[in-house]
Amino acid sequence: MYKAPVTEIGFALRHVAGLEAAMVEGLTGDLTPDLLDAILDEAGRFASDEIAPLAAIGDREGAVFRDGAVTMPLGWKDLYARWTAGGWNGLTGPADHGGQGLPTAVSAAVCEMWNGASMAFGIGPTLTIGAVDAIEAHGSVHLKSVYLDKLVSGEWMGTMNLTEPQAGSDLSALRTRAERRDDGTYRIFGQKIYITYGEHDLTDNIVHLVLARLPDAPAGVKGISLFLVPKFLVEGDGSLGLRNDVKCHAIEHKMGIHASPTCTMIYGDGTGETGEVGAVGWLVGEENRGLACMFTMMNSARLYVGIQGLGVAEAAFQKALDYARERRQGRSTLLAKDRREPASGEMVPIIEHPDVARMLLTMKALVSSARAIAYSCGHALDQAKAARGREEALRHWSERANLLTPLAKAFPTDVGVEVASLCIQVHGGMGYVEETGAARLLRDARIAPIYEGTNGIQAIDLVSRKLPLSDGRTVAAYIDELEAIAEAVRGSNRPAFGETADRLGEALGDLRDTTAYLLEHLRAGRLSEALAGATAYLRLFSLCSGNAYLAKAALAAPDADERAALARFMADHLLPEVAALKRQVMAGASSLDAARAALN
Amino acid sequence: MYKAPVTEIGFALRHVAGLEAAMVEGLTGDLTPDLLDAILDEAGRFASDEIAPLAAIGDREGAVFRDGAVTMPLGWKDLYARWTAGGWNGLTGPADHGGQGLPTAVSAAVCEMWNGASMAFGIGPTLTIGAVDAIEAHGSVHLKSVYLDKLVSGEWMGTMNLTEPQAGSDLSALRTRAERRDDGTYRIFGQKIYITYGEHDLTDNIVHLVLARLPDAPAGVKGISLFLVPKFLVEGDGSLGLRNDVKCHAIEHKMGIHASPTCTMIYGDGTGETGEVGAVGWLVGEENRGLACMFTMMNSARLYVGIQGLGVAEAAFQKALDYARERRQGRSTLLAKDRREPASGEMVPIIEHPDVARMLLTMKALVSSARAIAYSCGHALDQAKAARGREEALRHWSERANLLTPLAKAFPTDVGVEVASLCIQVHGGMGYVEETGAARLLRDARIAPIYEGTNGIQAIDLVSRKLPLSDGRTVAAYIDELEAIAEAVRGSNRPAFGETADRLGEALGDLRDTTAYLLEHLRAGRLSEALAGATAYLRLFSLCSGNAYLAKAALAAPDADERAALARFMADHLLPEVAALKRQVMAGASSLDAARAALN
Repeated sequence: MYKAPVTEIGFALRHVAGLEAAMVEGLTGDLTPDLLDAILDEAGRFASDEIAPLAAIGDREGAVFRDGAVTMPLGWKDLYARWTAGGWNGLTGPADHGGQGLPTAVSAAVCEMWNGASMAFGIGPTLTIGAVDAIEAHGSVHLKSVYLDKLVSGEWMGTMNLTEPQAGSDLSALRTRAERRDDGTYRIFGQKIYITYGEHDLTDNIVHLVLARLPDAPAGVKGISLFLVPKFLVEGDGSLGLRNDVKCHAIEHKMGIHASPTCTMIYGDGTGETGEVGAVGWLVGEENRGLACMFTMMNSARLYVGIQGLGVAEAAFQKALDYARERRQGRSTLLAKDRREPASGEMVPIIEHPDVARMLLTMKALVSSARAIAYSCGHALDQAKAARGREEALRHWSERANLLTPLAKAFPTDVGVEVASLCIQVHGGMGYVEETGAARLLRDARIAPIYEGTNGIQAIDLVSRKLPLSDGRTVAAYIDELEAIAEAVRGSNRPAFGETADRLGEALGDLRDTTAYLLEHLRAGRLSEALAGATAYLRLFSLCSGNAYLAKAALAAPDADERAALARFMADHLLPEVAALKRQVMAGASSLDAARAALN
Repeated sequence: MYKAPVTEIGFALRHVAGLEAAMVEGLTGDLTPDLLDAILDEAGRFASDEIAPLAAIGDREGAVFRDGAVTMPLGWKDLYARWTAGGWNGLTGPADHGGQGLPTAVSAAVCEMWNGASMAFGIGPTLTIGAVDAIEAHGSVHLKSVYLDKLVSGEWMGTMNLTEPQAGSDLSALRTRAERRDDGTYRIFGQKIYITYGEHDLTDNIVHLVLARLPDAPAGVKGISLFLVPKFLVEGDGSLGLRNDVKCHAIEHKMGIHASPTCTMIYGDGTGETGEVGAVGWLVGEENRGLACMFTMMNSARLYVGIQGLGVAEAAFQKALDYARERRQGRSTLLAKDRREPASGEMVPIIEHPDVARMLLTMKALVSSARAIAYSCGHALDQAKAARGREEALRHWSERANLLTPLAKAFPTDVGVEVASLCIQVHGGMGYVEETGAARLLRDARIAPIYEGTNGIQAIDLVSRKLPLSDGRTVAAYIDELEAIAEAVRGSNRPAFGETADRLGEALGDLRDTTAYLLEHLRAGRLSEALAGATAYLRLFSLCSGNAYLAKAALAAPDADERAALARFMADHLLPEVAALKRQVMAGASSLDAARAALN
């Protein structure tokens, strides 16, 4: 069973992401080291003791749809109630609406624990956080006063309604329409698909944020507006009124996250109690500026999906490690250390076999790298927020957060799939049997590289929009920081690092080369040359960054040679992929385009 | 829906695996080009039109266990009857028992189609083939006369009973016991797990081959014997008699291949109709030589599991390609060719996007490589069989088959998982919805790297047992052949090959270096140094071999530049991984052992 790695999470937050320094400099608001420890401890307890035990039943029963209603698995409603009672929903919420206003990095860390315990549980509140962010940043005074308190406390949950059958990765194809009404409200009509927690029985009301198009809107993404559409209209006294004209038409039968209802939502088919056709909605932000509103929360939403991959990966690593310590198979011919011959007939725990140790160390290195990248992104978001008014710092941290966001979404979600798959492999035949729980982790993890912008889209975003930030100086400054880590490794003269400094330095050279190559193509307008290698580049970047962060963690713990050994393992075993990825990036579009004929 | 790639399969058999030359030289028995075409066409029709339509229901309903009996999904019993009526079960079976005695390579090709249509269907007959092989090679005259005709026709099916709870990868821990009886029969007692098609309603009788230990047997694998245990005893006239004391206790609830019942079998708990306790069994081969009997069929069994991965990978590639041609999303900013700007507002098929094309080409290159390796292994098995009496040829082809077997099992099954996962990614959100069918392919594929010897075990086998064959000359001769292909690519001066010759030559140099490195450690008795990099070496070997085979295919089709372009794509995009894998192999055990501390 999942056990939240509280100590490791605290260490990564403080010494890798940079929270320690920020706390010292007073840049984290009310957050002190003691408070941080208390939060992580209590979150760890809740995740391990309360959420994790309900994960299997959530998978087995799943959310059940019947007659427009969705019933959550046994025990989940009560679980959610206990979770909100603990104040967890409002961790980052605005203080004037009952939130604790804590840093996103802390929220990300805690969120890793929810997702490690159950990704199907963890994803729901993430959407509420997004709704809170959107309303806080762009909502009217009226909307804030009616909705924020209850969304921050978790009494109500929020949703994001973007996708339509013909509009997935490309939102410009949206067709859901909104009509103005004289009282300033709108009526929404259309169908949305893949709406996470679009309907359920955890809360009395559900607050949908819906992208739609006004009749006179410009074509494409510049004609999209954002609307708030509650499941139940809210009376002046805050009580629930009539059922709005929005309903769940069906839920998807998915590969995983079975307890997370994925809904098809119908707006405006006349089934509400309002006496008219059309779901009553309120504009959030300005007309035709809906995409901008979405983008303000996109960064944190993408980070939180990355955190899902991370959480599942950590759970899978733990599960495989536990099994490999218990399960005994094989004898001396398979032994890691020929010299440590066991007594005849004695079987050894499979962790002793080199190939199993390799898998486990790969998992650990990937999980730790993914965590470092994700938390660093969260910290950058926080520092940007804290830097308001200090122009240089604001620009630095905003661009750092922007740069890291596609890495923080794509890499941990790829790692989630990779590590969950390795977890099955370590278990052998038992991994394929559902009762073991390893299969669930892979089934759950497989969605994360897809939603909230596929990882292919993240790679495009990284290359085409993030590299050019400040004309390439943003990425260059970041690589400088990674190189400083490599230099510090070299300067440490610590034997446990092995050849980490050399290998990391070499890989960072490749990162610099490929970055320059891509920027050159972008500047010359050869977008397709740059994009052909975008996915390879994102992974290359992530491996370099992740390994540098492992080294940084080891440098921060001079006595913990196991940290240096992990950085070294990654440098020896995973970082060599960087040179291969460099070749892929630089192969460009020509070999890819030439090969298209092979697809005919 | 899966459509068997008959033309491509025929091409790979003839021009890559080497069947064309063997047919010309008269080394393929009755098999002529016309007969081969007819077999592949008809198998393709059966797989595409009859099996594929029942795959989804097989997954949804699954095999159902109740009161010791297993009911197969709707339509499956009839499907199996039509399949055996078509003579498909006896393709490689001995002619004197009604089989067609065709080459294993042809059987492998046809088997790819069954598995492409439905892996849960394809796996069943594979086990019957194994049973036929074991009985033909080691069974008594009595066993052959009673069982072979019906196993060859498919009237009865066979099973393999190896695994026990405490004995998975390590068979030396077997506890199932066998007792001698005065009439020359045995009584079997014990529990076996993960028995594929251990119980079902497709056939009237099921013939179990069971590994067990005699009371006076030596410890370890040298004390294991093989027994034939029928579900129903067979009367003198061939009719079915009393129910034997063997039963299915339960079936596993698995991640995939739901229609393939995975059974826990109980032998000898007194529930048969024989009036005594103990399942009646007959010895196959000699006492305590059971593992040798298993090994005679192990090669083809491992190949057939590789074929499962291949079949699923092909199905996943086709599914993704179809979707990428139909689904339209995105516009010019994402376009593969900047210059081909579509009219404003027009969305392009996603195959136009570079990252999607990259995924599809990766899938195609991996599938084609895996096919080439698997068929080449099958062909080597056939040539070894055909070479009986010609000592040099026999040794050459036997060792070639032995060398290729771990590659043919591990690489295609890894590719199955990789390609099925990419198939989901290409589909976006729709890939995660079960009705689409993409998720099933990944769920099905995930077992293949595990059973019939995990891929980690395959890597150990490759390094520790196959490389030393003929003191390293076997592997050296094989690499020579691959290098001859690289040289032929260079000599062809075909522009479509791009830099394939250089890149392949470089990778083959790495293959030679790592092979020498591993052999050196083996000769010096440093087994753990060699095994630490075994998995990386297996993949390195497979990528080199696969890319060389793609080039060989292109050389055999001088006018088909799309084949050369695919070889080039692989050389540019996938082969660079070889240099990274070389580093992993050569990192050896030290960095891995040092990092073990990070697992504490």
